[in-house]
Amino acid sequence: MTLQDRLRTSIRDVPDFPQPGILFKDITPVLADVTLRDELVTAIARNFEAQKIEVVAGIEARGFIVGALLAERLRVPFVPIRKAGKLPYKTVRESYDLEYGSATIEVHADAFLPGQRVLLHDDLLATGGTANAAARLIRQLGAELVGFSFIINLSFLPGADKLQQNFGISPFSIVSYGG
Amino acid sequence: MTLQDRLRTSIRDVPDFPQPGILFKDITPVLADVTLRDELVTAIARNFEAQKIEVVAGIEARGFIVGALLAERLRVPFVPIRKAGKLPYKTVRESYDLEYGSATIEVHADAFLPGQRVLLHDDLLATGGTANAAARLIRQLGAELVGFSFIINLSFLPGADKLQQNFGISPFSIVSYGG
Repeated sequence: MTLQDRLRTSIRDVPDFPQPGILFKDITPVLADVTLRDELVTAIARNFEAQKIEVVAGIEARGFIVGALLAERLRVPFVPIRKAGKLPYKTVRESYDLEYGSATIEVHADAFLPGQRVLLHDDLLATGGTANAAARLIRQLGAELVGFSFIINLSFLPGADKLQQNFGISPFSIVSYGG
Repeated sequence: MTLQDRLRTSIRDVPDFPQPGILFKDITPVLADVTLRDELVTAIARNFEAQKIEVVAGIEARGFIVGALLAERLRVPFVPIRKAGKLPYKTVRESYDLEYGSATIEVHADAFLPGQRVLLHDDLLATGGTANAAARLIRQLGAELVGFSFIINLSFLPGADKLQQNFGISPFSIVSYGG
């Protein structure tokens, strides 16, 4: 089986989470499978080999896990992008709309050097609101956003198009789920 | 300089976070230093070499970062222990008291096999409330808790004593800060 097929087999569908009608894609079985986890990280790292990534930024909380493994594999710094109020030092922040209300994420103001080539990682791309805000934070700090990586892309939602339009970068994902 | 000294130099003190009078220990500079991060993970992994760790469990959210790197280094599954309401599948949960109110953490009910040897990781040990609840979850699921690892122990707080008393395991940390 291809890596994609093995990931699809390992990723667990949980119906009606976090709310009725949503089919949640649970990657915890992938994190528990050392070989599969390793191949996943290898596949993402290989995709960005030519891009000379200098930093991996991971989005709280699930983006921290494979994000950290990617940073380790690429031998580059790891920068956490967090929910508002969690980072202790001086931060920059971006807010974005949710279905009801809004959310705010932050990054330390000294997290990137000017021009540093950043790969932004999260586990899942849906509507793209969080990734879009995180990408704006990276640019706001003068770093160069060179890629988006996701384990999963929910391709029936507009996240990938939104990131492409706003940043001119086609997001990379390993597994896509259609509508 | 020893690893301990280099970590102390890298860890950033942020006064009055998250509230007045608290001196926050910020490990984000360590995550951005590839060599230091690597030596930190090596030091923790080496300490548990004889323990035949079969799973690393990391506590949301900061415990996910070095927790995942430890799981990778030890070539074992990684299990996320999360705040209530975040894990999609069937869970077990534990609540614990905070200064004001309480908090609840969860783990998937199928996260561990019976008897599996688990290392519990978080970045910082303070009063030990979260680690204590996480350790109870691991035992509740029939796994064998064989160690606690932390980057930092605030040794003027009773966390280490509490874990030793409740579980008969002396928690391992790389850097201790006294009162």
